[in-house]
Amino acid sequence: MRHTPLFLRSALGLALLAGVAHAAPAKPPKELPPKPSVADVIKASKADEWRPLDPENTVYMELPAGRVIIELAPAFAPNTAANIRALVRERYFDGLFIIRSQDGFVVQWGDPDEENPRPFKAKKTVKAEFTVPIKGAGAFTRLPDRDGYAPQVGHANGFPAARDPAKGETWLTHCYGMVGVARDNDADTGNGSQLYVVTGQAPRQLDRNITVVGRVVSGMPLLSVMPRGTGALGFYEKAEERTPITSVRMAADLPEAQRSRFEVMRTDSASFQAVVEAQRNRGGPWTKVAAGHVDLCNAPIPVREQK
Amino acid sequence: MRHTPLFLRSALGLALLAGVAHAAPAKPPKELPPKPSVADVIKASKADEWRPLDPENTVYMELPAGRVIIELAPAFAPNTAANIRALVRERYFDGLFIIRSQDGFVVQWGDPDEENPRPFKAKKTVKAEFTVPIKGAGAFTRLPDRDGYAPQVGHANGFPAARDPAKGETWLTHCYGMVGVARDNDADTGNGSQLYVVTGQAPRQLDRNITVVGRVVSGMPLLSVMPRGTGALGFYEKAEERTPITSVRMAADLPEAQRSRFEVMRTDSASFQAVVEAQRNRGGPWTKVAAGHVDLCNAPIPVREQK
Repeated sequence: MRHTPLFLRSALGLALLAGVAHAAPAKPPKELPPKPSVADVIKASKADEWRPLDPENTVYMELPAGRVIIELAPAFAPNTAANIRALVRERYFDGLFIIRSQDGFVVQWGDPDEENPRPFKAKKTVKAEFTVPIKGAGAFTRLPDRDGYAPQVGHANGFPAARDPAKGETWLTHCYGMVGVARDNDADTGNGSQLYVVTGQAPRQLDRNITVVGRVVSGMPLLSVMPRGTGALGFYEKAEERTPITSVRMAADLPEAQRSRFEVMRTDSASFQAVVEAQRNRGGPWTKVAAGHVDLCNAPIPVREQK
Repeated sequence: MRHTPLFLRSALGLALLAGVAHAAPAKPPKELPPKPSVADVIKASKADEWRPLDPENTVYMELPAGRVIIELAPAFAPNTAANIRALVRERYFDGLFIIRSQDGFVVQWGDPDEENPRPFKAKKTVKAEFTVPIKGAGAFTRLPDRDGYAPQVGHANGFPAARDPAKGETWLTHCYGMVGVARDNDADTGNGSQLYVVTGQAPRQLDRNITVVGRVVSGMPLLSVMPRGTGALGFYEKAEERTPITSVRMAADLPEAQRSRFEVMRTDSASFQAVVEAQRNRGGPWTKVAAGHVDLCNAPIPVREQK
């Protein structure tokens, strides 16, 4: 019985990341109850409301505990995504490490050796891609719920994003599971050879200060439990504390048999609107007060393994 | 050099939880630079801007990996806090387990045996304490930054809280590290024998739906890395996956020598205002765009060990 309390959240087990909803609460398909749960909506969704991952934008990071799958977002960081593909294809990451785990913030990976860093052929610096022009960034499904950090927030093809129409800029937001590019103080010093994933409360203050290049669509539990580092910023102080990265590959470079087959709910679909509304105003016997609001980083983006 | 990227967040290593700020950005003490970091403010803070934990409201949960310290909030959940004290004092929790770890959501502890649950003398049910009257809840330092979930958010003596003046109600909010009371579908079925801590993106949709009784002020890294459960809702499926709870004690019941000596920055102090402003509008060579906003669950509440 004590297991009921957080039951309404259960459907989010499926949802690996946070997301957004369409302006108008969606009209759920007829077969759904008046206040469907996220699980109800997913079950009733149509096949064409899901999209498979593009193998050219899908990165597999193999850890001893299993596979982490990252979807790159070239629409928001074309040059950085290209450099990460180049780094992966020269097998730069193989044998490197998880080097940092700061509680309630991020887990970071790359080369721990700052004195004699591993050389690579890919670009050493990539111009900052903190924001991109709204024109050309593709579809945006705006979330009606207000946001404190940006004039508009919503969804861009499965990625949480924000927009400033006055400046004509859009950017990916630092929600749980989003992947960013470590850089030095100069804006243009990132290159993708050291990446981090958000594992704590969304550090939205980093938005527009660093290039966000994608999100983890599978395997977050492998990264989020990394023991917290005891050094400054959660960096590991001893080599043996670091988890080795077995290999990193582009899905496109693996034979079909070795590829994972995940699909993401289309964020411009009616079912996605219904998913977010199910999170915004929950039904069921447990809920006493519906929130009437959903935060950009608190709505699920359903991901599932294809049959 | 690759270690610089998230440096500005480093001061938050000290800050175990999220918090709020005063309406007016604080005027930092003279010795501070124009845009001090959180660490700068903490270093310059005065002794009387900190308060020690009250031993009667401080719970030590001893795990094999170390001590977790929970501060109870009797102003918001007097009856539940009293029942938890009673459960602790009859040593109810000793030898029970961490029973659930749902990625990006919560870690929960208590009795895993639903068929033959461990009996206890404390109350079996406590009336819901989802909200309390604003009158009598004590000081509230309002955060000027807008919030989507509540008319007002701010800080009540070190706890993140929200208020609805129209209804005359106030409640603690589900920020990272906040501790809540598991319940069944009926509102009045919680008793404190099974508790959870928020380990993921703040599930604010739970606000006003469940009794929030306190927050973890030390030891979050021991709970947040619990391997995720593979059962529904992240419950562990095998007994051997559960981490045992060595013991749970009230600080007041331990001899001085066995007590931890932590203090929390007073959330009605000028330095706390400066801490939150340092998070809202960061300075330093790394930041290119200051957020100009801080979310209730994204501002730090500094905690430190007393000298």
